[in-house]
Amino acid sequence: MTCIGVLGGMGPAATVDFMSKLVELTPASCDQEHLPVVVANLPQVPDRSAAILGRGADPLPGLRRSVEILNEAGAGVIAIPCNSSHHWYRELCELSLAPIIHIVHACIERIPAGARRTMVLATRGTLASGFYQRELEAHGQHCVAPDPVRDQPFVDDCIRRVKAGDRAGAAASLQVMLDHAKAEGADVVILGCTELPLAAAAGTDAHGMLLIDSSLELARAVVEYGLRSGWNHG
Amino acid sequence: MTCIGVLGGMGPAATVDFMSKLVELTPASCDQEHLPVVVANLPQVPDRSAAILGRGADPLPGLRRSVEILNEAGAGVIAIPCNSSHHWYRELCELSLAPIIHIVHACIERIPAGARRTMVLATRGTLASGFYQRELEAHGQHCVAPDPVRDQPFVDDCIRRVKAGDRAGAAASLQVMLDHAKAEGADVVILGCTELPLAAAAGTDAHGMLLIDSSLELARAVVEYGLRSGWNHG
Repeated sequence: MTCIGVLGGMGPAATVDFMSKLVELTPASCDQEHLPVVVANLPQVPDRSAAILGRGADPLPGLRRSVEILNEAGAGVIAIPCNSSHHWYRELCELSLAPIIHIVHACIERIPAGARRTMVLATRGTLASGFYQRELEAHGQHCVAPDPVRDQPFVDDCIRRVKAGDRAGAAASLQVMLDHAKAEGADVVILGCTELPLAAAAGTDAHGMLLIDSSLELARAVVEYGLRSGWNHG
Repeated sequence: MTCIGVLGGMGPAATVDFMSKLVELTPASCDQEHLPVVVANLPQVPDRSAAILGRGADPLPGLRRSVEILNEAGAGVIAIPCNSSHHWYRELCELSLAPIIHIVHACIERIPAGARRTMVLATRGTLASGFYQRELEAHGQHCVAPDPVRDQPFVDDCIRRVKAGDRAGAAASLQVMLDHAKAEGADVVILGCTELPLAAAAGTDAHGMLLIDSSLELARAVVEYGLRSGWNHG
């Protein structure tokens, strides 16, 4: 039996949200029509953003352990609902028996052709790693990041609050960021951290900008992969 | 690293709900304080209720495969957020390296000492297997099941609708059952199928009866086990 592998736990609430999206995106009238999924939800992996910035322990051994669990369980494809972890994408692909769908590739397909200015909201680590900027520019998109002094603290605060279970407070911080993004002329905002959609769902106003939910787009890509492979038929 | 093992997929939405409860019940201010969890969410396991009633394929091989995955992943305790699967509890315990917390044991602790009449809402398979009735009676509780002709079809319909994604319709069927339970003098109702809490959350009136959510009680037991074992500290 081949299954979808989810390398999760970063954070646990974002992983539950991702799993919920997998279920909702799968057309099924009974259990057996759903896709088989194995989830390694191991939140003890050291902080990814801090490690990218050179200020924390290396998360790679923990990420590798999860890949091994998913390989052993028979994963035919792996999704990582944590943007920052994609800093180690190449190393994880080298270890994995199954292909790993890159979360940025899943997001980029949703940017409309006429988009002028795409803002990426993400951890400081993801932004320092630069994989969003490189992919967006390769697709002819102008990518802007929040101002690190004036704006990024609201993104950091939003992510921290979701991880601590305070979704209302997280939504208030995200709203400040969305107000800034609108004022700076963004027409697309990528929620490039899987905690951010949980804050957005707690009540924010996008001022007509298109919000791209990286968790939803990754879920969509992996469900399509699983259905195309027929894994819900044994 | 030792983790909680979740033998899920029956159904997938109920497993996501169970995982959400694990996260919410864990006091944590950051990812690393959460409990490590590996989930085998393999919904291709044949229908448990039908098998107990002698009308379907044997789910035991599929359940065994999930236990093996969780054993290999390092589970130190296993939870099965599917009541009907507990028909095979003994066989699964024999195979598992880790103890399996019985969902009925988790529920029974919540019945108040003064309760007079406890109604168990569950699949026809769970009721035919009789493990709820035996445990309740062993604890001095009078257990009543829905009338199989007049009432049980509403339970069946409720479960089926949750599995198919129709929570509003499921809530309407559950409401009919709760009305019947109240009219029959129940003071406690056990939601003895992990789909039922999803219907209850979509909007039902319990008429003052105590609803015991089997999924929540199992989550509470397993989180307590994990925290006591210190698994969120590596």
